[in-house]
Amino acid sequence: MGEFDLIARYFTRPARRAVLGVGDDCALWQPQTGMQLAISSDMLVEGRHFLSTVSPQRLGHKALAVNLSDLAASGAKPLAFTLSLALPRIDEAWLKGFSEGMLALADLHQCELIGGDTTQGPLTIGITVFGEVPPGDALLRNAAQAGDDIYISGSVGDARLALEVFRGNLSVSAADFESARQRMEQPEPRVALGMSLRGIANACIDVSDGLAGDLGHILKASQVGAVLTTDWIQDSAAISAALQALPFARRLDMALAGGDDYELLFTAPPDQADAVQEAANDCDVSITCIGRITSGSGLQVLDAHGVPMSRRFASFDHFS
Amino acid sequence: MGEFDLIARYFTRPARRAVLGVGDDCALWQPQTGMQLAISSDMLVEGRHFLSTVSPQRLGHKALAVNLSDLAASGAKPLAFTLSLALPRIDEAWLKGFSEGMLALADLHQCELIGGDTTQGPLTIGITVFGEVPPGDALLRNAAQAGDDIYISGSVGDARLALEVFRGNLSVSAADFESARQRMEQPEPRVALGMSLRGIANACIDVSDGLAGDLGHILKASQVGAVLTTDWIQDSAAISAALQALPFARRLDMALAGGDDYELLFTAPPDQADAVQEAANDCDVSITCIGRITSGSGLQVLDAHGVPMSRRFASFDHFS
Repeated sequence: MGEFDLIARYFTRPARRAVLGVGDDCALWQPQTGMQLAISSDMLVEGRHFLSTVSPQRLGHKALAVNLSDLAASGAKPLAFTLSLALPRIDEAWLKGFSEGMLALADLHQCELIGGDTTQGPLTIGITVFGEVPPGDALLRNAAQAGDDIYISGSVGDARLALEVFRGNLSVSAADFESARQRMEQPEPRVALGMSLRGIANACIDVSDGLAGDLGHILKASQVGAVLTTDWIQDSAAISAALQALPFARRLDMALAGGDDYELLFTAPPDQADAVQEAANDCDVSITCIGRITSGSGLQVLDAHGVPMSRRFASFDHFS
Repeated sequence: MGEFDLIARYFTRPARRAVLGVGDDCALWQPQTGMQLAISSDMLVEGRHFLSTVSPQRLGHKALAVNLSDLAASGAKPLAFTLSLALPRIDEAWLKGFSEGMLALADLHQCELIGGDTTQGPLTIGITVFGEVPPGDALLRNAAQAGDDIYISGSVGDARLALEVFRGNLSVSAADFESARQRMEQPEPRVALGMSLRGIANACIDVSDGLAGDLGHILKASQVGAVLTTDWIQDSAAISAALQALPFARRLDMALAGGDDYELLFTAPPDQADAVQEAANDCDVSITCIGRITSGSGLQVLDAHGVPMSRRFASFDHFS
């Protein structure tokens, strides 16, 4: 099997909304009049973004999920994506699993594979995703306002918990490991929530490098500060049962500096609290209020007694 | 220097046409009403698409050039691109050269860098490029008609000549090597020609895997055959001085199965011959008529005496 057969067999489907899909020099797309395009690219490298132990189905899912998560953070509706794939060799069982996992998630979000590239090389997955959003409605990092409540969707820290078990730094029950591993390997992008927060939330980002670090991006872009509470790490929907079993200090680390969560971290004025909750209910996603934006600068983290903590929470850096 | 400083220093410039450029979860772009988007992704891997001896400036140029060449083949006007970059380490001199080479070509074509991703990993460059084309005007592979003349822009075989010298399979004069190496490392995408051929050419493709193989894609998609002449390989603008110095049989191989040429291979009805020539003149690019589309199937290559040759010309396959 050669490059062109591979593309035809695993990555070519009839064009749906695309004017022209996989198979020519370019794909063609007719944008809906007046809408803005939201565009994001992410590259996943073996050993850095995923472990060699991940199943191809889950890897296909995750590679697209982390890109859809960027659209979600902008409040954009997914439209289409391109896939560039470097593979050490042609392994049909792997390709079948990978494409099935990816295309199942694509179908769920009606996001069409319209093109890409396949080559030999160290396993690397590059995806560029396109979405649409009405002009002025995109959720940006620079729009947080002093007084805004800070929310996190779903739960955080589980992917890091699974990673630490893989690394042999931690031991948890088989059931807890399985649920944490599922969160690490098959994150669910919060696409519906992102779209529902248009006009309600001010700033938004998806948590990929760690909650505290990603909140830092909002603070810097919006030129504001924040006070983050930690009582929710004691007991809330944002902390899974698997994480609850760990000592508080460890939980704190994983929740605030774990990374790979792909939850939405967003801010909204207090008078939008009911609208925020309603949007979350409509999308069947839990949300937890975890702090407040201030007019100062920098991030202050309070301990369970409301006392500022002196320690800092590192953000994930791909080069450190 | 960390990931975010690196992006800020080398890959962030003020947004021009973009509503929002590098730095948020997504870039935002307002498409021009009524225009179609042309979208293409290419991934370049060290050792497969480029040699470790290439200068970072030329590599930056080439990585974007091969993507712009896909827009050219569709007749699309470049608008913007995203860059995903896996780097073994942060090497500031390399990053400076790479970004300068890439952004100089981007400026030449007014193609704006609007986003991307940077991570650690084996040197891999992923680019997705966006262009625009009026509905119905895109040049496609499936539109060749029996009776069409077949043209190639510029010259072919030079990149392969340089590669064979690098591999130690061939020895040429220093001047010939330098010019061939320039063609291999700094291809010029035929963007203006592609746009000028709208409404004139029928089918079009860019030559990346070898002229004969890429012509095969047009034949298959258009369900037609072709007769390719070879007298032009004897003496024409399509064969550089460097290639002229080689024996004919070797030249034939490099011209028809060399790859990495990034020239436009297109078909047009004979009554458009003057319009084709005028478009080429306007763009200051030579074109050479190299054969004709037939109502049959498959590709017949004629020798210098007009006699069909029995040998076949392989297309480049990244997995063989």
